[in-house]
Formats: sequence, C-alpha cells, structure tokens
Amino acid sequence: MTSVLSDVVNHQVRLAARPKGMPGPEIWEHTTEPVAEPADGTFVVRISHISLDPAMRGWMNDARSYIPPVELGAVMRAGGVGEVVASAHDRFPVGSFVSGVFGVQEYAVSDGRGVLSIDPDAAPLASYLGTLGMTGFTAYFGLFDIGALKEGETVVVSGAAGAVGNAVGQLAKIKGCRVVGIAGGPEKCAWIVDELGFDAAIDYKSENVGKALRAQAPDGIDVYFDNVGGEILDAALARLARGARVVLCGAISQYNAEGKMVGPANYMSLLVNRARMEGFLVFDFADRYAEATAELVGWMQEGKLSSREHVVKGSVADFPETLLLLFRGENTGKLVLDIT
Amino acid sequence: MTSVLSDVVNHQVRLAARPKGMPGPEIWEHTTEPVAEPADGTFVVRISHISLDPAMRGWMNDARSYIPPVELGAVMRAGGVGEVVASAHDRFPVGSFVSGVFGVQEYAVSDGRGVLSIDPDAAPLASYLGTLGMTGFTAYFGLFDIGALKEGETVVVSGAAGAVGNAVGQLAKIKGCRVVGIAGGPEKCAWIVDELGFDAAIDYKSENVGKALRAQAPDGIDVYFDNVGGEILDAALARLARGARVVLCGAISQYNAEGKMVGPANYMSLLVNRARMEGFLVFDFADRYAEATAELVGWMQEGKLSSREHVVKGSVADFPETLLLLFRGENTGKLVLDIT
Repeated sequence: MTSVLSDVVNHQVRLAARPKGMPGPEIWEHTTEPVAEPADGTFVVRISHISLDPAMRGWMNDARSYIPPVELGAVMRAGGVGEVVASAHDRFPVGSFVSGVFGVQEYAVSDGRGVLSIDPDAAPLASYLGTLGMTGFTAYFGLFDIGALKEGETVVVSGAAGAVGNAVGQLAKIKGCRVVGIAGGPEKCAWIVDELGFDAAIDYKSENVGKALRAQAPDGIDVYFDNVGGEILDAALARLARGARVVLCGAISQYNAEGKMVGPANYMSLLVNRARMEGFLVFDFADRYAEATAELVGWMQEGKLSSREHVVKGSVADFPETLLLLFRGENTGKLVLDIT
Repeated sequence: MTSVLSDVVNHQVRLAARPKGMPGPEIWEHTTEPVAEPADGTFVVRISHISLDPAMRGWMNDARSYIPPVELGAVMRAGGVGEVVASAHDRFPVGSFVSGVFGVQEYAVSDGRGVLSIDPDAAPLASYLGTLGMTGFTAYFGLFDIGALKEGETVVVSGAAGAVGNAVGQLAKIKGCRVVGIAGGPEKCAWIVDELGFDAAIDYKSENVGKALRAQAPDGIDVYFDNVGGEILDAALARLARGARVVLCGAISQYNAEGKMVGPANYMSLLVNRARMEGFLVFDFADRYAEATAELVGWMQEGKLSSREHVVKGSVADFPETLLLLFRGENTGKLVLDIT
C-alpha cells in the first residue's frame, strides 16, 4: 500500500528536566520526528484530543510510585483519543477510533496494549477522556467500591468542579445522597449546584471550610472523596460521621509544594469515628471498565449524568501552558487539549 | 446485715484542672469520702488493681471525642478490678470478682453496667486489665478484624513493648506472621524478641526507623498496627506493601503535644499502595468479648500467649506519678497500680 505517512511530521513535547514546584516552560522540549509505517502487530494513531490530569505532576518526579516516572527526554505521558491512520494490527483497523496512553504528540505507534475502542457516534470524542473514560471510571470505582456508598448518605467531594469531582457528585446524586461540593470561586460553585444538581457548594476561596461543613453536613460526613489534600482534607476529617469512609483520589494542593507534604493533622478522627481512609488506582479495576461504561452511558442517555469538558483548542505546543490551568484551579470539568 | 463499710474511708483522685502537655501533679486533687451502703440494684467494689492507659490523656481534655471528657472535680476515670464487698445486686454477690470502669479510688459503687465477672483462680487479677481484658481485646479485634490479618503476612507494631503492642505481636506470631516490633531501648527490644518471639525489634531511640523497616520488611508491611503516631507512623507509611492495612489504635507520641497534632506527611502512600488506614474502638466489639476471652485464654493455656503486667505497688495517691511512666515510655507491658 502507499503510505499516508510519508510526508507527515510528528510534533512532540518531551520532559527535559524535573520540575521543582510548578512545572514551568523550561522543563519541556519541543521536538519533531517522522512517522514510520507500523510494524506487524502495531498501528498508528492520529491523536485528536489529549488529556491533562493532576497525576501528571507526580509522573514528572524521580520518585517511587505506582508507575515509573517519565524519563528525561521521553515524550510526556498522557492519555488521548484519536483515529487509526495506518495499521498492521487485527483489532484496530484504519478508520477506527481508540483511546489510550498515547503521549503528548500528534501521532503515536501502539501495539494495542491498554487501548480501548471507542464509538465516535455515541458521544463526543473528548468525553472518552472525561466521564466515559478514566475520569468517569475513577469516580465510579472510587465512590462505589472504595467509598462503599449507601443510598441516602451525606457525601462531600473536594475539587468538585474538576474532572473527577463533578462526576463523583453526579453519581452520588443518582444514588439519592446529599451531596456537598467544595470548589474554588462563585462560578464553579454555581455550576455544580445549578447545572449538576449538587445540594450545596462551599467556596474554599471565600468561606471557612470547617464552619461551612458543619452547616452543610450537620450529622457528619459519611463519604468524603478527596481530590485536593491539605487543609481541606483536614477540615473534612474533623467532620466525619461514625463509620465514615475517606476516599483518597488525589492531593492537588500538595503536588507542587516544595519540601515535605503536609499530613492531615486531624487523622485521629479516623479512630474516634471508627472511620477509614483508603487509596486506590483506577487501573486496578481494568477488568470492570465495561461494566462501568455500560452504567455511565446509561445514565448519560437518561439525562442523569452529563460530561463536561474544558476544551482548549491548540497544538501540542500549547500543552505546557494548558497544564498550568489545572494547578491554578482554572479549569471547570475535564481539561482536554483539542489538537485537531 | 451489719455493714462492713461503716468505718471505711474511700481515698480518691479527682481531676482538678485540665492539663497542658504532660499531666503534672498540679492537676490532681486527693479527696476522701465515706462509703455508703449500696442502694437496691447496686453493689460496692473494693478495688485491688487500677489500669493506667494512654487513652486517659485524651479523657482529660475538654474536647469532643468518643466519650465525654472527665469533668473537673470528678473522680478520674479508670478501669479496675476488685472484689464485691457489699451488694444489693443479683448478679454480683459479695465475694465475687469483677472488672469495670471504677475510677481512681479504693471503693466504687456500680449498678453493673459494663461490669464483667472475672475468675481469680484462672489468672492473676492484674491480667484481667491486661491480655485477658480490654488490652487483649484491643489487640485481638484490631489485628484480626480491622487489620484483616492473613497468615504469613508481615506485621509491624509500634509501642511493641506496651500493653496492646506486645499482645498484637504475640497474636500475629500465633497466626504465622513475620512480626517486627518498634520499641524504645535495648531492654524492651530484647524482651519482645527473646521472651515473646517477635522476629525482629527496632529501637526507635537508637535506630533510623525508616532504614530499619526497609531491612526488616523488605517486601513491605502488610499490616501496621499503630500505637504511637508521629514520625514512626510516617516511617511505616513509607514502607507499605500493596493492599496494606494500617490499624489506628493510638498516638501516644502526640497526646501531650501542645499545639496542633502532627499529621502523617506520607499519607499518600495509601493511594500509591491501594492501602487503607482505619480506626476503631474496642467498645464497639463488646458483644464479642466472650469469643475473644475464650480464644485468648486458650492460647495462654497452650503457652502461646503470655500476659505481662508492669505492676506498681502503692496507693491511689501514687496514680499521678505512675501515669507518667506511660508517657515517658518507662513501662514494659500493661501498666497497673496494685493498691491491695
């Protein structure tokens, strides 16, 4: 066959240095490469949308974690969706759409491991990085499995206007819970209450979170889903109900801190309230993604669940600056870079 | 009946002020009272042994917790064992032996709520405050229920020469686990290894706990039973195995801290390792004390479990000074004041 790839240049963003604090422009290197024909058992994806996630900050550190750090000089790790444009792989023919960890670049070669087929007609492509992707799965398994949510409970979620947080609140509402979201600024707070149906919002930038939690969760918090860590985690710990579950999903307030992390001083509330705090990684639930997808799609079709993406249009070169929106709390919903 | 109590004076220790930091002699008041004949449905206990527990420090604070604080002017709350010397209660006749929360005094009147009958011939009275009492129950339910211990796992316990800690280690050995105890000083470390059969001991006063844990638990910690909090909790969090359980039983390193508690900076290890940290109170397992007693007595009779009490002989007036042994880490085993 004649190649569609012969004249194609792949623009990439590589990690050139490990950041201290906020990841500034100096840690990135912009490179180009030709795109090779796929070898047997592989295929080439033209990436359309790139996922931007708080976890990326951890991947940049040279530290032991649940996956190896991104190596210096490597294309930055990132989830993405796109179309297969050349293929020597049975399951992923040319013209099919896929999601996977394709990196911050325009084209990726894959052997199919960890790649999911997606249906571009069922939902917008970007939503496969949001509520129909890892983001939604994280909310689903975190809330239902780790949080062991029961109907009618009081749920508090931090980072509530963020990608995972807004899905968590919507899922808890579907289960008949009282849902309080903690977010930064009046627009986000209005959005989660007026558009998503949260029962209440707490603006951590203008309110005392501890006092507000006392008012909004007077009988205590049954499930606290934490995306931020720091002082907000501490405030929530102080308001746990007996038998509460604290779901550790992230700690974005701490990711760019230089020096030691701040631990939750109120952790002994776990003892007083016979409560537990538990961490999880969505990858451990990979064999149940189909189950989650079916439920999430069903709720979307019933109009009970909406996927909100904060889409920035641009090129891969805009990745470094776009990422900072996350750490400055400037995104509402799932942050996605659209490079089509 | 003629009273055995007519000339009896009950010496008591009352909480006169709330401590800041270490509870010094100035916070206690020593009082005497006559002992009244028991009203219908009550009985009088002559206390022989008084339990001294780290939790007492929390009871002295004027703060919301799992039970109300000791009120100023009240007899200090304490567990104890003794003999019934006057009774108008069906279940607790004169001459029977009992354990219960009788306070720091020589005589207590009780209506029987929360009181257990004990057998002075089956074990020394003091052991009903130790391994056959709340101390042993705490180890039992904390390790087996909250810790969900499985055979062959690696268990680390802090405060390992303390009342609960030494029982935890022995129970884990009975279940075929590798057991590492963290304790202060060479005598305690030698005791838990040589006498109790722990696989290893770490002396936190002379060793770097993090390094020592890396050496003694090279594949990570499956269950960490925490009695101390602070830096040792942090060091253990940094060494968790995947799926680990952290059992929060106490935080003695923090109880006398003035100012804010120090939280565990490494708590995000719970996320990376898909681990959980959970608190509990032994009182919640009251309906299973009989089950625990039967098992614990069985293991003691088989010679697999020993109860070690650190008995101080004296009078109730010696309570304030004896209590400080706990917070200075000077007890080995269960600290008991023998006032016979």
